[in-house]
Amino acid sequence: MSPSTARLCEVWRGPIAESVHFGHVVIAGPDGEVEAAWGDPDATILPRSSAKMIQALPLVASGAADARGLGPEQLALACASHQGAPLHVAKVAEWLAAEGFDEAEMRCGPEPSRDKNLRFEMIRDGKSPSQLHNNCSGKHAGFLTLAAQLGGGAEYVEPEHPVQIAARDAFEVVTDRESPGFGIDGCSAPNFATTMSAMARAMSWFATAHRREDTLSRAGVRLREAMMAHPLLVAGEGRACTLLMQAAKEPVALKTGAEGFFIAILPERGQGIAIKAQDGATRAAECAIAAVLVRMGVLDADHRDVARFLSPQITNRRGIVTGSIKPAVTLLG
Amino acid sequence: MSPSTARLCEVWRGPIAESVHFGHVVIAGPDGEVEAAWGDPDATILPRSSAKMIQALPLVASGAADARGLGPEQLALACASHQGAPLHVAKVAEWLAAEGFDEAEMRCGPEPSRDKNLRFEMIRDGKSPSQLHNNCSGKHAGFLTLAAQLGGGAEYVEPEHPVQIAARDAFEVVTDRESPGFGIDGCSAPNFATTMSAMARAMSWFATAHRREDTLSRAGVRLREAMMAHPLLVAGEGRACTLLMQAAKEPVALKTGAEGFFIAILPERGQGIAIKAQDGATRAAECAIAAVLVRMGVLDADHRDVARFLSPQITNRRGIVTGSIKPAVTLLG
Repeated sequence: MSPSTARLCEVWRGPIAESVHFGHVVIAGPDGEVEAAWGDPDATILPRSSAKMIQALPLVASGAADARGLGPEQLALACASHQGAPLHVAKVAEWLAAEGFDEAEMRCGPEPSRDKNLRFEMIRDGKSPSQLHNNCSGKHAGFLTLAAQLGGGAEYVEPEHPVQIAARDAFEVVTDRESPGFGIDGCSAPNFATTMSAMARAMSWFATAHRREDTLSRAGVRLREAMMAHPLLVAGEGRACTLLMQAAKEPVALKTGAEGFFIAILPERGQGIAIKAQDGATRAAECAIAAVLVRMGVLDADHRDVARFLSPQITNRRGIVTGSIKPAVTLLG
Repeated sequence: MSPSTARLCEVWRGPIAESVHFGHVVIAGPDGEVEAAWGDPDATILPRSSAKMIQALPLVASGAADARGLGPEQLALACASHQGAPLHVAKVAEWLAAEGFDEAEMRCGPEPSRDKNLRFEMIRDGKSPSQLHNNCSGKHAGFLTLAAQLGGGAEYVEPEHPVQIAARDAFEVVTDRESPGFGIDGCSAPNFATTMSAMARAMSWFATAHRREDTLSRAGVRLREAMMAHPLLVAGEGRACTLLMQAAKEPVALKTGAEGFFIAILPERGQGIAIKAQDGATRAAECAIAAVLVRMGVLDADHRDVARFLSPQITNRRGIVTGSIKPAVTLLG
């Protein structure tokens, strides 16, 4: 963590700014270099789920995706932090069945569905959440598919497993540096650390991948296109990634990460964006990504689905509007 | 909000400090003056539910509590942000029934129980949460009781209602200053703003109340004693206020507030503590209050229920420990 941060947003209740969020924002250009930054571009961070499209590169680049006949829906799911809604659960289940995998082979662990209707239904029916409901189950279906190709045994989340070695190698290529270390993610896979500017660089790598012919870049194109073609699979109803991708005025791949991370891949501009709320708050990262994309003309501030994240109203238990979150003026422009 | 904050805690995942929280901590002495501060003692804040014992002062000081035969359990509930567990719901229901109030007269709004068993049971039975389940229902039972005494109509959360005028007056007495404004709380009652040092002063007011003979001070003694006698009512199972009050080596009244607030009242020392996590994070305020109380010798760092908030482990979906939260060394001492 770095002492030098930028204001991202304020949380207002009536006339009082009761809380405030700080963090880092970096925009990288087509050459991978920093074009704009707020906060500290050299801050070391864990990108968490915002790195999923990087972790999915070996699945495609190895030929495993094509050997198994995976299409854009599976690639989108491999990059997803999905809601665990019936749609997501069914498609991951189909994927596993098509490849002959059993849910028991997954290593992400069970997690309740984030889809309220399904979650309540399962409570009423006394059904326990399965690993399919885990928001990372698409990523793990991808890991299983790759593991079947590479070999290395059943424990595909172990850092020394060929699947994770491949993920780390891809991570170091697209960030153009060695990763200083990793943490273990909520879903048990390694999550590699890097700097803010290196993560923005990685996103610009995806944004310019169509300009290159190498296998890894072609895999990058397919993954980002899959995300943009299937925003509902990447996240789900009501989710920032989904709604903002759908509201965007140009193609953009968006991906949230736990502990206040957010990325954007802008293929028409060849730019990549990385955002980290220093304190880990999702509300701040969502506000900031919306603000930066509005600033850049990718989103309209007036669009209802944009306003929802850019300047959400806070309502209380009687539905009274008690406050709102406002993006920092320095960010919004 | 103020630019000058102090580090409260870091969130570690493996070898990486992935997030960090900053905020303000103020300790006031028996004379109400600042004895120690980290961050900005002049920062303007909303204390949220940490002010509940202040808001409950008129209930006692007016004579309403005695006129209605309220005991320490009701006074504890009036200061509570309870779990909405069967215990809390039953006792608030009893209170309302004893006074002839109907749940429909409450103005806090419904909220699901925070008690997992009860919440699941209600989902299974298709039962909607009621206002009794709202964590503020004890506070609102207190407001109803006071409103019956003071008159002023049914809308007791309106800022100009005698109940809220009395609450504001009490707030300004114990903070020893005029409140610059208020926000509307999640439960629809006004929440008055003040500074960090004034809130700490207010807590030291409660801590020294037994040394004074005036009606308001005697009310303060009764409220803080009720909180300390009934920690389970003030919050609930597994909650920081409850567990830390129970683990403390001397009498201390603790109260959490939304958006990362926490207070402590220390009658043996005549001291009051106020803590605000700048970004609003409860995990940071809990870590910080535990750290400060360990520093002061009120809590033992080795006590299991203290470690749980001072340095909680972060586990993932497969129960693997992936990281932890560590208090700032400057705070812990």
